[in-house]
Amino acid sequence: MIKWNNLDTVEAYKELSKVEPVKLASVMSGENGAERVKKYSVPMAAGLAFNYAAKQVDDNVLNVLSKLAEEMQLTEKFEALYNGEVVNTGEKRLVLHHMTRGQIGDAVQADGTDKRSFYVEQQNKITEFANKVHSGAITNAAGDKFTTVVQIGIGGSDLGPRAMYLALENWAKVNNTFKMEAKFISNVDPDDAAAVLNTIDVEHSLFVLVSKSGTTLETLTNESFVKDALKGAGLDPSKHMVAVTSETSPLAKSDDYLAAFFMDDYIGGRFSSTSAVGGAVLSLAFGPDLFAQFLDGAAEADKLAANKDLLSNPAMLDALIGVYERNVLGYENTAVLPYSQALSRFPAHLQQLDMESNGKSVNRFGELVNYQTGPVIFGEPGTNGQHSFYQLLHQGTDIVPLQFVGFKNSQMGRDVVIQDSTSQQKLCANVVAQIVAFACGKDDADRNKYFEGGRPSSIIIGDKLDPKSLGALLSHFENKIMYQGFAWNVNSFDQEGVQLGKVLAKRVLAHETDGALKAYSDLLNI
Amino acid sequence: MIKWNNLDTVEAYKELSKVEPVKLASVMSGENGAERVKKYSVPMAAGLAFNYAAKQVDDNVLNVLSKLAEEMQLTEKFEALYNGEVVNTGEKRLVLHHMTRGQIGDAVQADGTDKRSFYVEQQNKITEFANKVHSGAITNAAGDKFTTVVQIGIGGSDLGPRAMYLALENWAKVNNTFKMEAKFISNVDPDDAAAVLNTIDVEHSLFVLVSKSGTTLETLTNESFVKDALKGAGLDPSKHMVAVTSETSPLAKSDDYLAAFFMDDYIGGRFSSTSAVGGAVLSLAFGPDLFAQFLDGAAEADKLAANKDLLSNPAMLDALIGVYERNVLGYENTAVLPYSQALSRFPAHLQQLDMESNGKSVNRFGELVNYQTGPVIFGEPGTNGQHSFYQLLHQGTDIVPLQFVGFKNSQMGRDVVIQDSTSQQKLCANVVAQIVAFACGKDDADRNKYFEGGRPSSIIIGDKLDPKSLGALLSHFENKIMYQGFAWNVNSFDQEGVQLGKVLAKRVLAHETDGALKAYSDLLNI
Repeated sequence: MIKWNNLDTVEAYKELSKVEPVKLASVMSGENGAERVKKYSVPMAAGLAFNYAAKQVDDNVLNVLSKLAEEMQLTEKFEALYNGEVVNTGEKRLVLHHMTRGQIGDAVQADGTDKRSFYVEQQNKITEFANKVHSGAITNAAGDKFTTVVQIGIGGSDLGPRAMYLALENWAKVNNTFKMEAKFISNVDPDDAAAVLNTIDVEHSLFVLVSKSGTTLETLTNESFVKDALKGAGLDPSKHMVAVTSETSPLAKSDDYLAAFFMDDYIGGRFSSTSAVGGAVLSLAFGPDLFAQFLDGAAEADKLAANKDLLSNPAMLDALIGVYERNVLGYENTAVLPYSQALSRFPAHLQQLDMESNGKSVNRFGELVNYQTGPVIFGEPGTNGQHSFYQLLHQGTDIVPLQFVGFKNSQMGRDVVIQDSTSQQKLCANVVAQIVAFACGKDDADRNKYFEGGRPSSIIIGDKLDPKSLGALLSHFENKIMYQGFAWNVNSFDQEGVQLGKVLAKRVLAHETDGALKAYSDLLNI
Repeated sequence: MIKWNNLDTVEAYKELSKVEPVKLASVMSGENGAERVKKYSVPMAAGLAFNYAAKQVDDNVLNVLSKLAEEMQLTEKFEALYNGEVVNTGEKRLVLHHMTRGQIGDAVQADGTDKRSFYVEQQNKITEFANKVHSGAITNAAGDKFTTVVQIGIGGSDLGPRAMYLALENWAKVNNTFKMEAKFISNVDPDDAAAVLNTIDVEHSLFVLVSKSGTTLETLTNESFVKDALKGAGLDPSKHMVAVTSETSPLAKSDDYLAAFFMDDYIGGRFSSTSAVGGAVLSLAFGPDLFAQFLDGAAEADKLAANKDLLSNPAMLDALIGVYERNVLGYENTAVLPYSQALSRFPAHLQQLDMESNGKSVNRFGELVNYQTGPVIFGEPGTNGQHSFYQLLHQGTDIVPLQFVGFKNSQMGRDVVIQDSTSQQKLCANVVAQIVAFACGKDDADRNKYFEGGRPSSIIIGDKLDPKSLGALLSHFENKIMYQGFAWNVNSFDQEGVQLGKVLAKRVLAHETDGALKAYSDLLNI
C-alpha cells in the first residue's frame, strides 16, 4: 500500500540534515578527486552516463538518500503511475506520457481502449501521413510537395517540440533524413505570427495546429492569423492544416483539417514531446524513422528509471541530490548548461518542465507544505554562458547548483584545428575546466581573483547528440522531475497557477474591470 | 569628495529594514490600487514610462531609498564615471560606454585623444563603410552586392548585438530600412559555425569579427572556420571580413580585413552594444540612420539617469527598489518578462549585463561584503512564459520579483480580431492581468487554487518598440545595473570570475592535468 506523505514526515529526511556536509573543494582535490570522478558515475540509457562526483554527496549522504527513496516508496509510486493509477489527483487523471514510447508495466485501459495501442495507433497514423507528404501523395492544390511545416502551439505544444527540432535539425541534415524545414508560432503577440509568415512560402507550407482542448486562446488566434494569410494567397486553409488534439475537442472531427492526430488528458502538455504533439512536427521534419529512434531512447531511459536501487537509477539519483540541495543545503536555483549548441533551447524546455511541474506550495492533498519545492531553472549553452552569467556562478554571493551536459563528438563533424586542438576538443576542455573550477576554486591573495569553490555540479556525458540519446536525455529529466514531485509530495501534473491570469485577462478584454486592473488597462490603451 | 562605501555602512540602509513592509495584496486592491498605478510612475526616455505601483514600496520606503541614494552619493558616482574617473578600479580603467551615444558631462581625454570624438569618428567610419556596402561601392570580387552580414563574437560581442538585431529586424522590414540579413556565430562548439555556414551564401556574405583584445579563443577559432569556408569556395577571406577591435590589438592593422573599426578598454563587452561592436552589424543590417536613432534613445535615457531626484530618475529608482528586494526582503532572483516577441533575446542580454556586472562577493577594494549582491536574472517573452514557468512564479515557495515590459502597439501592425479583440489587445490584457494576479492573488477554499499574491512586479510601458525606445530601454538597464553596483560597492566593470575556467581549459588542452581534471578529461576523450 502506497502512502503519499510529505518529505518532512520521514525519518531519512531528518537524518539527512544531520549528515556531515561534504566539503567539495577538499574532496575534489588531488587523487581523491580522480577517484570520485570514477566512482560517482551511473550509466544512463542510449550510452549516456550521469556523473555526480562534483555534487556535495558521499557514501553517507547517498546511504540516507537511499533510505529516503525507500521510506517514501519512490519507485513504487512510479510503478503506480505507469500501471495506471490516478496520480494526477487534482485533475483526477492518469499520467501516461511514458506509454507514448513504451510500456514498462501493466496494460492500462481508459476511455474504453488499451492506451498503449491508442498511442501507437496515433503515431502510425502520423507515420503514414508523413510518408505521404514526403512522397508527394499528399500535396498542395497545385500538386506541389510541401516544403515547410509550421507548428502552431504554445507552452508544452511549443517548447519541447521546438527544442527537439533544434537539437536534431543538423543531425538530420548530415544524416540525410532532413525532410522539411519546421517553424513555430506560439506567442499571442501578432508580431510572432507575422514574422514567421514573412519568412515562409505559405503555398508550400503545412500547418500543425496543436491544442489538447481545442480552446487555447493563443493558438486559436494564431490559427486565424494563418488562415487569413492562406486565404489572402488564394489558398484553401483546410488543405494546409492538420490538428493535434484530443478526441473530444472541437477540432477533432472538423473538415477544417487534412487530418487529426490525437493525444488525451493523460499526457500533460509539458510531457507531450513524445506524443503526437512532438510526433507530427518531428516526423514531418525528419521522417518517422528518426522519431522512432527518439522514442526508443526515451523508452530505454524509462526502464532504467524504474530501478529500485538508487545508485542504478540515474533519474531518481539526480532527483534526490536535487532535493538534498534544495531542502538541506538551501539552494534556490538550478542552472542547466549543455555544451552543445544544438541544445540551445533545451534549458527553456526544462524550465517549463520543472517549474510548471514542481513550482507548488501545496501537497497533493491541497495542504501547505513546510519546505521549499521546485527551484528556478535557467540556462544557456556553453561556451556562450561562460562569457555571460558564469561570473555570478563563480563569485556571486549565492550558490547555484549546475547541471552540465557534454558530448565527445560534434553532430556535424566539421571542425578546425587552432592552437593544436579542434573546436570540439576546446568545447569539451571547457566543460571539464568549469566543473573543476566550480568545485575546487582557487586561492589568491587578491580577493578579487579568489574563487571559493564548493559550487556543486553534475554532468551527463554522451558520445554524440543523436535521436536516441536526445530521447534518453529528455526522459531522464522528465523522470527526475517526477521523482522530485514524489519527494515533495506535490502533484507535478496539474498547473492551477496559470488559471488566475487567464481569468483576469478575459475580464480586461471584456472591460469588466475596476481598481488597479482598470488603471493598468488605461495605461496600455486596452 | 566621493566616498566609496559598503551598503551596510550607511544609516539609511539600517533604517530601511525598520520600515514597515508594504502588504502588496492589500494596497493594490480596490481604488487604492488604482491610485497607486497613477501615482507610482515615472517618465523614461523616448516616451517610455516606468511604473512601480506593484512593487513593495510606499512613500515611507521611497523616502528612505532617497536618503540611501544621497548618503551613498549615487548620482555623484555616476557623475564621476561619466566625467572620466577611473571607476573600473580593478582593471584601472575609465568607464565610457555612455560616451558612445552622447556626452553628459566633461570632455574626457585618454590615450591622447578626446574620447567622445574618437567614438563619433568610429561610428562615422562605420556609416561610410555601410553606405558603400549598401550602394554597391564595396562588393565581393565578382562585383555583386553583399546580402548577409555575419557577426563572429561571443559574450558581449554577441548577446547585446543579437538581441538588438532581433528587436529591430521586423521594425526595419516594415519601415523599409532593412538592408541585409544578419547571422551570428558565437559558440566554440563547431556545430554553431557549421550550421550558420550551411544557411548562408558565403560568396555574398560579409563577416564582422569582434574581439577587443584580438585574442578571444572562441572568436579566433570561428574566424578560422569561416576563412576555411571562404577559401573552400574559392574566395579571398580578406575581401569578406571586417574587424571590430581595439587599436592596439593584432587585428587592428592587419591586411586580413577590408576595414577595422575601433573600440577601447573603456567599453566593457557587455556595455558595448552602442559602440562599434553593435554599430557595425546593426548599421550594415538596418542602415546607419536607424542605428543613430537607437543611440539617440540611449543618450536621452543617460541624461535622465543623471537626475539627482530619485523619483525622477527611473534607472536609479529601479536599481534601489531592486536593492531593497534583494537585501531587505531577501529575494534571490529577478525575472525579466517582455510582452514582445521582438524582445525574445533581450532577457538573455540582461542576464549577462546584470550577472556579469554584479555577481561579485568582494567590494571594489577587494574586501568580502556582508550582504547579497547581484541576483540571478532569467526570462522569456510573454505570453510564452505564462505557459511555461509562471506556475512557479504564482504558486511556488519562493518569491521572484518581476520586471515586465509592454507596448501599446505591435511592430508590424498586422493583426487579427478573434472574440472581439486583436492579438495585440490580448497581449496587453495578459500583462495587465498578470501584474494584478501576482500582486493581489485570489482566495480559494481549495488551496490548490489559492493564490497568495504579494508577488512584486514593475512594468515599463511604451507606445511601440522602435529604434529609439529600444535604445532607451537598453540604457535604462545599463544604468540600473551600474547604480546597483554603486549601492553594493562592487566593481561592476570587471569579470575576474571568468578567468579560472580559461586557465584550466588551457591546461586540459595541453594535457597538463592530474586528479579530477584528468579524470574528467578521460571521460570526454580529450
